[in-house]
Amino acid sequence: MKVAIIGVTGYSGVELIRILLQHPKVEIVSIHSHSQNGQGIDDYLPHLKQLLSLPLEPIDPVKIMAQTELVFFATPSGISKEIATAFVEADFPVIDLSGDFRLKADGQYEKWYKNSSAPPDFLQTAHYGLADFYRKPTSKLIANPGCYATGTLVSLAPLVQKKIIEPTSIIVDAKSGLSGAGKNLSESSHFVNSNENMTLYKMNSHQHIPEIMQQLQKWNAEVPAIQFSTSLIPVTRGIFITSYARSSQKMTQEDVWHLYQDFYQEKYFVRIQEQESYPNLRQIIGSNFCDIGVAYNEVTNIITVVTVLDNLVKGAAGQAVQNLNHLAGWDEKTGLEMIPIYP
Amino acid sequence: MKVAIIGVTGYSGVELIRILLQHPKVEIVSIHSHSQNGQGIDDYLPHLKQLLSLPLEPIDPVKIMAQTELVFFATPSGISKEIATAFVEADFPVIDLSGDFRLKADGQYEKWYKNSSAPPDFLQTAHYGLADFYRKPTSKLIANPGCYATGTLVSLAPLVQKKIIEPTSIIVDAKSGLSGAGKNLSESSHFVNSNENMTLYKMNSHQHIPEIMQQLQKWNAEVPAIQFSTSLIPVTRGIFITSYARSSQKMTQEDVWHLYQDFYQEKYFVRIQEQESYPNLRQIIGSNFCDIGVAYNEVTNIITVVTVLDNLVKGAAGQAVQNLNHLAGWDEKTGLEMIPIYP
Amino acid sequence: MKVAIIGVTGYSGVELIRILLQHPKVEIVSIHSHSQNGQGIDDYLPHLKQLLSLPLEPIDPVKIMAQTELVFFATPSGISKEIATAFVEADFPVIDLSGDFRLKADGQYEKWYKNSSAPPDFLQTAHYGLADFYRKPTSKLIANPGCYATGTLVSLAPLVQKKIIEPTSIIVDAKSGLSGAGKNLSESSHFVNSNENMTLYKMNSHQHIPEIMQQLQKWNAEVPAIQFSTSLIPVTRGIFITSYARSSQKMTQEDVWHLYQDFYQEKYFVRIQEQESYPNLRQIIGSNFCDIGVAYNEVTNIITVVTVLDNLVKGAAGQAVQNLNHLAGWDEKTGLEMIPIYP
Amino acid sequence: MKVAIIGVTGYSGVELIRILLQHPKVEIVSIHSHSQNGQGIDDYLPHLKQLLSLPLEPIDPVKIMAQTELVFFATPSGISKEIATAFVEADFPVIDLSGDFRLKADGQYEKWYKNSSAPPDFLQTAHYGLADFYRKPTSKLIANPGCYATGTLVSLAPLVQKKIIEPTSIIVDAKSGLSGAGKNLSESSHFVNSNENMTLYKMNSHQHIPEIMQQLQKWNAEVPAIQFSTSLIPVTRGIFITSYARSSQKMTQEDVWHLYQDFYQEKYFVRIQEQESYPNLRQIIGSNFCDIGVAYNEVTNIITVVTVLDNLVKGAAGQAVQNLNHLAGWDEKTGLEMIPIYP
Repeated sequence: MKVAIIGVTGYSGVELIRILLQHPKVEIVSIHSHSQNGQGIDDYLPHLKQLLSLPLEPIDPVKIMAQTELVFFATPSGISKEIATAFVEADFPVIDLSGDFRLKADGQYEKWYKNSSAPPDFLQTAHYGLADFYRKPTSKLIANPGCYATGTLVSLAPLVQKKIIEPTSIIVDAKSGLSGAGKNLSESSHFVNSNENMTLYKMNSHQHIPEIMQQLQKWNAEVPAIQFSTSLIPVTRGIFITSYARSSQKMTQEDVWHLYQDFYQEKYFVRIQEQESYPNLRQIIGSNFCDIGVAYNEVTNIITVVTVLDNLVKGAAGQAVQNLNHLAGWDEKTGLEMIPIYP
Repeated sequence: MKVAIIGVTGYSGVELIRILLQHPKVEIVSIHSHSQNGQGIDDYLPHLKQLLSLPLEPIDPVKIMAQTELVFFATPSGISKEIATAFVEADFPVIDLSGDFRLKADGQYEKWYKNSSAPPDFLQTAHYGLADFYRKPTSKLIANPGCYATGTLVSLAPLVQKKIIEPTSIIVDAKSGLSGAGKNLSESSHFVNSNENMTLYKMNSHQHIPEIMQQLQKWNAEVPAIQFSTSLIPVTRGIFITSYARSSQKMTQEDVWHLYQDFYQEKYFVRIQEQESYPNLRQIIGSNFCDIGVAYNEVTNIITVVTVLDNLVKGAAGQAVQNLNHLAGWDEKTGLEMIPIYP
Repeated sequence: MKVAIIGVTGYSGVELIRILLQHPKVEIVSIHSHSQNGQGIDDYLPHLKQLLSLPLEPIDPVKIMAQTELVFFATPSGISKEIATAFVEADFPVIDLSGDFRLKADGQYEKWYKNSSAPPDFLQTAHYGLADFYRKPTSKLIANPGCYATGTLVSLAPLVQKKIIEPTSIIVDAKSGLSGAGKNLSESSHFVNSNENMTLYKMNSHQHIPEIMQQLQKWNAEVPAIQFSTSLIPVTRGIFITSYARSSQKMTQEDVWHLYQDFYQEKYFVRIQEQESYPNLRQIIGSNFCDIGVAYNEVTNIITVVTVLDNLVKGAAGQAVQNLNHLAGWDEKTGLEMIPIYP
Repeated sequence: MKVAIIGVTGYSGVELIRILLQHPKVEIVSIHSHSQNGQGIDDYLPHLKQLLSLPLEPIDPVKIMAQTELVFFATPSGISKEIATAFVEADFPVIDLSGDFRLKADGQYEKWYKNSSAPPDFLQTAHYGLADFYRKPTSKLIANPGCYATGTLVSLAPLVQKKIIEPTSIIVDAKSGLSGAGKNLSESSHFVNSNENMTLYKMNSHQHIPEIMQQLQKWNAEVPAIQFSTSLIPVTRGIFITSYARSSQKMTQEDVWHLYQDFYQEKYFVRIQEQESYPNLRQIIGSNFCDIGVAYNEVTNIITVVTVLDNLVKGAAGQAVQNLNHLAGWDEKTGLEMIPIYP
């Protein structure tokens, strides 16, 4: 399958290149960027020398549709809602890694992204591609979930779907490496500010909250809200989420573990740790895995779920390729069996 | 005042040297270590060259009591419960940075430290030196609190003392830099294992839990337990604690902030951030400050408290010197106005 | 081709697994370790869960030779010189990643490794597998070069082979990440000691010096010695080598660049940067590339060569697989076109 | 002594505050900044809360001279050459941490800083404050040396003054932490770009080269040039310089060590390591020390000098205070006996 990537110079775009170059059924035919037109990608990104030498082309939907069979948008929020319309109207397959097509309810995008939304019917049509849960996309326009949203939803799904927790008790303490903050320069991603530091940067205000709530409420309408904060830790890649919720009935450590083990039995990319064992961040870096460990406090009835994923793979480019595999009808593992980089 | 330090080669001992060398009323007269007897401390620790050249002496209580007025123990747990007895019996002032004299209830030390405890009457006598709360030590034997315990207690004190939260709702998500793991070599403190990583290492099983519970229940007997986990983040110094609890009544963000602001008005070393502002780890490194920011989720009634401290200063040597100041009747800030190292 | 790996739990062994699992012509049939016999590798290394579940078996040469066609030794120095003999005597293919078969001259191994050497005839027979230079192994016993040696030799080859420098003027200032120090716990690889630090650890005494000199003198007998020091920088992977030598005749920046460009034209894994451009460490991590930039100081006639490589890939497992490809007569790139992990 | 600081929000300015707040003979009376006028410094820099609450004032030379006795400029290059003139003309003491008054030769500033220079007579008058070498400033206008220049000059002084090396053989391989790159956002100081990386950023083109040459030639006119490159290593603070030069006569390791030991006998802030021992970066962080280890290669006659210093202390604010002490006639150690932060 011939594909194009728009927005190829951001971290998700670069990771998409890494994954697709090793995908047995895909060929990257063209790459596109607003900002660096004409230059070879390997001039801009020297790690790609001898591996990919396509030029950064301007974005011409007609030409892209003529030459390829699917387009990825790895652009920042606010771009694909404008540019993807030409593709969507032509019923051309689009996988969008940004937040532009994720939120269905009226006014939500405007509220959280401080910007006008994509056309409402596109929002309704778009398939929210939580790839381990939805293997048959309902639309050729796939909204790839956010990195925090992916980890949080995978972390909470068994508790919320099985309705075993108090609906107002969910607390999500999420930590991310700096690649999650993107390649744009900012105070918080300046080395001297983030090295040897940890900073809480969004208290109940991260833009992934509405897509998390939209999905949680689809699973269980009784959950009214979650406590959700995000911190930066001094690593390049990786998200480490500690989720807490209070069981509404007495359970045991073993009950909780079996719940997760059974729930994720058939989902290849979610690996449940052994009992009383918790994943570390490094064990999934570079791969499409999301690893989980669980605990239960028998006095307070608090369930703790520790979840790790690579924000650029499972939280972005990897899940996008998993959605591509679903859309194309290939095995979902195709091109995604990368071994984690360890050490 | 002439003092001795026993266990001077561990990280807390080294930090004690740094602080005491700059303390205007204290002179380090002798330093002691089981393992490196005879060698000059500056041979062992080249950063001290020209600053301190005392030899590492064996531990001779009689000689130490003859030459000094107070002794610090910066030894690992399990040492001072044996060696400090000679000093305590002679009513000689001891400030112990280890866990050996912190737990009063019968069997607690045995349970959490897997070791026989100090003599029970010493445990009863010992003053638990939570220095911002207790300015008049009740004993010449001071048990300096643990680093996680200090941060957790300062973080929760207003909520627990004022009884405004549901007693079973407390969750403490604590992260520490690697110096907290000590200078002994271990898998978890091997650079390749901890760099670019985050690891949850003790789920409801850290040995600081009992001293936290002992103090919380002193403040409010209704709190039966807390959910408490500890993770390692790839920094050298610093503890970042996110505490959660559910308010038992409706409040506002502002109410919570005023509660903390008023509560800590008179405590110099606890600095409450501006409203809707949260401390980062770096802003206290090298200093005796403990900085706090608070939030309130109006849907779930969850209060979030973000607390940062330097595990080697406020969490160990700094608080020990603050206790020394209390014991000696000096201003508690004496020798402790170190400016945080920033950047 | 069916292969076995002996010494699979060290960093080079783990990396060999990562590469071979993705190699289209190789199957890992068995893995072996002295220390963890019986346990599944994925219990020991959770990142491999669902990817490789072979048990760690004891080392039985007869059984290994019956079941496989080639064996890798990824053991520390001192092991393969004992255990590999059974394989070598049976003329069974061995690729040894340790230093045991690299040094030919009498007494050199004893001097630098402080240990008795392998049998002298094996040392003479062994093929020193500097894989970008020797594409036809002269023996089934391949001594895979050391990580510093690989980078240093690639860095200096054009200067030494073309005899354009003063023979006593070579200075190699080599820096390595901590994975180069291995998985054994040590003071220098303790996070608190190596984080935020840089340490020179071997001044003209690193055990890779003799294999570098052996090869340099093969290329140019006039080079009597080099100045060679190694430092640790706080990263997990990667070697950054700055080499200096004084040109014996006047040259220009452009002359030096063309020398390197031409010299490495046909060597796929050595990538010469654009003129006046220098590689950074990150651009090769996870890949088998060795990237080089050069400069010339027109006043002092000093040539500077900046060389980067991943110590675990090009400096160990990757080069070992490149040697396997040479030995098997496959394209040297087979299984080695991994894209660098960036960011 | 009452002092003012202009340019207080950069890293050198912040470090100057840290040092001066602990200096027994100095009071910071006012702080000034172009950009943040009016705001309290502790609002801008939360680590200073309760420690310094002066407002950031505009720069009014008349008012500053009326209220203080000396002014520090911790501004970027290009500012003090304009603003300091008013002070210099009034013969008011100025210590300038920027590069504006360091270069004496005509056209040098223009060439290296791409900007018009300060008035030539001011350049001639200014005292180049290499504080360990010049204890009696020759002017009230002190040009504080650059961080790389300080380390390089201290590293080479014995070799160059004693004329024991070949004049064209000097090679300086300098590595710096990211605080050396300043607080301005840039690609090279973006966490994701610098973490887990090492990058050579200026090959024979760093703006500290001319001040190094100016001083080296003052010591020994025969040195025509040096090979000088600078790299970034992923730490916040610290400079690690490896200098090489070829001895023009046969020496021994011990000769070289005695040369350094004797040369620096009387210079408190330069600490020579034991023989065959090399300083690590961490042993001087936070202090005004510059630590040195030396080696000699008996085959190639190459002398290696390993030098470490804290770029913000000895390389900036600390040396500035040392110059203040010289100017005021105080002991040079006054306020500068900070213990290195370790670990």
